[in-house]
Amino acid sequence: MSYERQNIRRMTGYASGEQPEQPGIIKLNTNENPYPATPAVAAALAGLKVEDLRRYPQPLANEFRTLAAQQHQLTADCILPTNGGDELLRLVITTFVDAGDVIAVAEPSYSLYPVLAAIQDCEVARIPLGEDWRMAPDFVSQLNATGAKLAFIVNPHAPTGLLTSVADLRTIADQFQGVLVIDEAYVDFIDPDLNYDATPLIREFDNVLILRTMSKGYSLAGLRFAYGMGAPSLIAPMLYKTRDSYNTDVLSQVLATAALQDREAAAANWTLVRQERARVAAALEKMGFSCPPSQSNFLLATVPAAEGDEEELQTRARRYYQQLKDNGILVRYFDQPRLRDKLRITIGTFDENQRLLACLEDCVRQD
Amino acid sequence: MSYERQNIRRMTGYASGEQPEQPGIIKLNTNENPYPATPAVAAALAGLKVEDLRRYPQPLANEFRTLAAQQHQLTADCILPTNGGDELLRLVITTFVDAGDVIAVAEPSYSLYPVLAAIQDCEVARIPLGEDWRMAPDFVSQLNATGAKLAFIVNPHAPTGLLTSVADLRTIADQFQGVLVIDEAYVDFIDPDLNYDATPLIREFDNVLILRTMSKGYSLAGLRFAYGMGAPSLIAPMLYKTRDSYNTDVLSQVLATAALQDREAAAANWTLVRQERARVAAALEKMGFSCPPSQSNFLLATVPAAEGDEEELQTRARRYYQQLKDNGILVRYFDQPRLRDKLRITIGTFDENQRLLACLEDCVRQD
Repeated sequence: MSYERQNIRRMTGYASGEQPEQPGIIKLNTNENPYPATPAVAAALAGLKVEDLRRYPQPLANEFRTLAAQQHQLTADCILPTNGGDELLRLVITTFVDAGDVIAVAEPSYSLYPVLAAIQDCEVARIPLGEDWRMAPDFVSQLNATGAKLAFIVNPHAPTGLLTSVADLRTIADQFQGVLVIDEAYVDFIDPDLNYDATPLIREFDNVLILRTMSKGYSLAGLRFAYGMGAPSLIAPMLYKTRDSYNTDVLSQVLATAALQDREAAAANWTLVRQERARVAAALEKMGFSCPPSQSNFLLATVPAAEGDEEELQTRARRYYQQLKDNGILVRYFDQPRLRDKLRITIGTFDENQRLLACLEDCVRQD
Repeated sequence: MSYERQNIRRMTGYASGEQPEQPGIIKLNTNENPYPATPAVAAALAGLKVEDLRRYPQPLANEFRTLAAQQHQLTADCILPTNGGDELLRLVITTFVDAGDVIAVAEPSYSLYPVLAAIQDCEVARIPLGEDWRMAPDFVSQLNATGAKLAFIVNPHAPTGLLTSVADLRTIADQFQGVLVIDEAYVDFIDPDLNYDATPLIREFDNVLILRTMSKGYSLAGLRFAYGMGAPSLIAPMLYKTRDSYNTDVLSQVLATAALQDREAAAANWTLVRQERARVAAALEKMGFSCPPSQSNFLLATVPAAEGDEEELQTRARRYYQQLKDNGILVRYFDQPRLRDKLRITIGTFDENQRLLACLEDCVRQD
């Protein structure tokens, strides 16, 4: 017989991007950093011994918390380390949202949110982004009208890469009645000239939770280490009650701490990603693709539109996806409304990007 | 304002055993293995590079799953790797128990179970163990009478170390109406002559989930890697729906696989732990302590009872705990019914055990 809860039986699990096992694949489908973590992280890894693993980890990852607090000019009780960003997203729901409550998301966004909502048996209210992929001026009114206890905003946005300003986030935080999660998974790739910094919102509001991860900017997707930042009243129940008692392991605590300490070296890679982002976007535009201006490490590219109707464009995008794949290049194709004529392309190394562009030129030429 | 759910606001978090930061402490309080992981695990750790961490992990830890399936003569779809045993315990509740449903536990047992139940807003039915710490003959009737959707049994039992036979477990699995979790965290320390093996129950019943961990037997508490074994129908919803999408990291997958592959070498350490367990138990008995026969890596020692009334014994146990601590030796004291006149002592190395015994002799002599 089946023992599952009804809501679990009904739901569909999350489909992660392909993680091919064969070597030599150019993997531009899951927004990993093209460059490895810095020498300081390598040195920390080389310094680890199995004897360090015999005992339980420090339960709260306090060394990391202290360092993160310093970097963000917060106190340690504002910091919650987690086993990847997914754990933080789940914990927010577990802690703040009852079964039957509403969770609001901008649509489209990260496809994991509705899955996590279904696990908690929550409703999802999807607030569509405008034609320009921006939040509507009355976004927060729409948010409050849903009665949502929790809202997820990805910033820079996925899958478009667009950045929402801190001023706009402040308005939402101020007026929203529930907990606002700002998922900053891609924050490290924002142009520093924009001076984006949402952490002051944590001191201003008791309902703002910012997600940071070591997966993207710090090239440690395989490590599973992220952290939340919020008012102590928001962090405490997750830190002391709902979190698994030893949620981060010894190795990840040591390496994440080493990586954060070595921020300047990682930032050199972020610059490279931004340079390549600009170069690839320009090359794509030249071929007839169009991309929203991305502040992330990926581009959402609409396939060349010259003579195609909507259906033809969708067929074309799928065909390009497949042709790239046949040539050993993985990108992401989302079979969902508004995205079927687009490819989401992670920025790779110079060589990887060159191979991508060459292959896409073939695609376009053959059309 | 407070945004927490009512049940989260009401509940108290789990209190883990002390994890002292200062060096030189003899740590016999959280049942860690006194010996480090084997040279094969050390070699696997030394072989890891930060480049291996740049990409997401294999989502299901398939290499580990295949190996574990082989070792237990099961198919891979019976195996669910998790970020420590805690994650598996949580996942079982998330997947099979609705808010308001009942979870049954033998009392006393692992103090995390009621905490996880509170997070899901479930009731906990506590079924007291007998005077001899054994389950009553009508245990399963009591279980069914509670209406429990889920029951947790630790085997060997914590905190007593007593072993329940597979025959008794089979009766419970057969007659219990819900999902039966057999938490085998300490299984590796069972005397091999007893031929204990509960895995056949997985093929016989669709409601049995066995928990195994790399924390104790394999000396990898700091790694956070465990796995569940159950019928594919029981495993699938956790594997494909409720689990965080990348719940185990690259490092832990590699090291756990290396450790399981090197089972024979780890087993040599289990023999040492058993030998020391017998020696320490005999020495304690000689001093007037009494311990149930433990098949685990700890002993539950009742302080010498000669002339004491109940209250005097409790004071004495607490005093011994403190005197040990003052001498740099940590053991576990549970301030809860039936356990206040006892100390739970993890089996350490020969030298650690000698220091423990010498200090306890001082305690007894001073009484």
